[in-house]
Amino acid sequence: MASRVCDSVLVTGSNRGIGLELVRQLVDSPSSPLQIFAGCRDPNGPRAQELQELAQKHHDVITVVQLDTDSVASIADASKLVEAKLNGSGLNLIINNAGVNIPGSLAESGTQEMVDVFTTNVVGPMLIAKNFRPLLCKAAAQVPHQTSMSCRRSAVVNISSILSSLTTCADNFNLCPMYPYRVSKAALNMLTCCLAEDFKKEGILVISLHPGWVQTGMGGPQAPLTTAESVSCMMKVITSLTEKDSGTLLDWEGKSLPW
Amino acid sequence: MASRVCDSVLVTGSNRGIGLELVRQLVDSPSSPLQIFAGCRDPNGPRAQELQELAQKHHDVITVVQLDTDSVASIADASKLVEAKLNGSGLNLIINNAGVNIPGSLAESGTQEMVDVFTTNVVGPMLIAKNFRPLLCKAAAQVPHQTSMSCRRSAVVNISSILSSLTTCADNFNLCPMYPYRVSKAALNMLTCCLAEDFKKEGILVISLHPGWVQTGMGGPQAPLTTAESVSCMMKVITSLTEKDSGTLLDWEGKSLPW
Repeated sequence: MASRVCDSVLVTGSNRGIGLELVRQLVDSPSSPLQIFAGCRDPNGPRAQELQELAQKHHDVITVVQLDTDSVASIADASKLVEAKLNGSGLNLIINNAGVNIPGSLAESGTQEMVDVFTTNVVGPMLIAKNFRPLLCKAAAQVPHQTSMSCRRSAVVNISSILSSLTTCADNFNLCPMYPYRVSKAALNMLTCCLAEDFKKEGILVISLHPGWVQTGMGGPQAPLTTAESVSCMMKVITSLTEKDSGTLLDWEGKSLPW
Repeated sequence: MASRVCDSVLVTGSNRGIGLELVRQLVDSPSSPLQIFAGCRDPNGPRAQELQELAQKHHDVITVVQLDTDSVASIADASKLVEAKLNGSGLNLIINNAGVNIPGSLAESGTQEMVDVFTTNVVGPMLIAKNFRPLLCKAAAQVPHQTSMSCRRSAVVNISSILSSLTTCADNFNLCPMYPYRVSKAALNMLTCCLAEDFKKEGILVISLHPGWVQTGMGGPQAPLTTAESVSCMMKVITSLTEKDSGTLLDWEGKSLPW
């Protein structure tokens, strides 16, 4: 049997799209984690039904966690629940996948759109990192003789986008002139850089990951990648991460993207 | 007499620090603009006294404008006032200098700090660009036979920071682990990239400019550059800008910085 991806993982925004597929592929893997925490804003709502069915089928592995990443209280409650379920162990991996897009040109973008998208896409992952830091540290410390970084030990993966890239903005701006989204994802990359440096001494790896253009609610049906393809590739990248990757932006095939 | 920097310029956050010095050097220059609009949040407050004295001395050139870049209504009012004062002419140059820093480590940074700094440092410049776009377009169109870009024609300069650089974050993070500020300035750079591409067809140049580490209220007394030195250098950079600079991050000496 293959060695486990990691012992425990939290996936945010896991009721649909890339988040749901991440949970599905993680639990279906021969190297499934022992515990998968599937965060979702409204676990009892109609949009979480597929996740709930999956969780029921794998109730020994998947725990659905109420987690609204816009709410400090919800994040604090979720971290307490995860801590209790981990029963003294640390949390190895967080995949900050929850995110929104309000596709807005300059004319369509105001304070509300900018702040809303920023709050979900940047402040959410920051609060998650902050609240779960003790559990990540605990996981990193549980392998004291192993100093190298990996997702098996302790890592934060922030789902970013090629649209976060300042270098390539001129190449694709006119195709998708989305001010709130682009600005938020560049900001998220800075969060990745800050966290990577901040968490380095504790042995926690932090990266930004571009999932590709994926056939999800956000990506639309004309996207070239299926959700399953993107997630399958991303899982290979995530499980192969090493220290040199921390503080970088990779794509779903593991290629390094320019800031 | 040297040819003018430009006919008209708006400087935000001009009651102190870099903003005040920009207005002072602009008006004292032998190539002074005909009209300088000095935006400031509270023109009648005690912290605007120095600006008011300068404006009184140069009342033919400087107009103090109430401009709270956090307020959509204030920006809209300011753009109407500037439009009236320009009397049919366009506005050549905007220097988005207003900005804040809440120096916060991860533990010290929450939703409020992140959103407040983002609102002032990113949403403000965006709303300014959006509201003043017609005046910038008018200025660019007033030289229809000149297709090259410059601050004499039409430009937006966003005052950014070396701390916005994702590439160099690991080098200086531990010296100043300021999550809200760094994240906001990386986001501002994406705004610069988006605006540069968006405004290109209208002949408007857009850049991010790092003023250096300056002895201001924000920079502190131990900074190596005086405000006068920084602004004098930045003025040279601003007046030398050409099309190839649009969508880039330069420092006060005109050196290109990596994203």
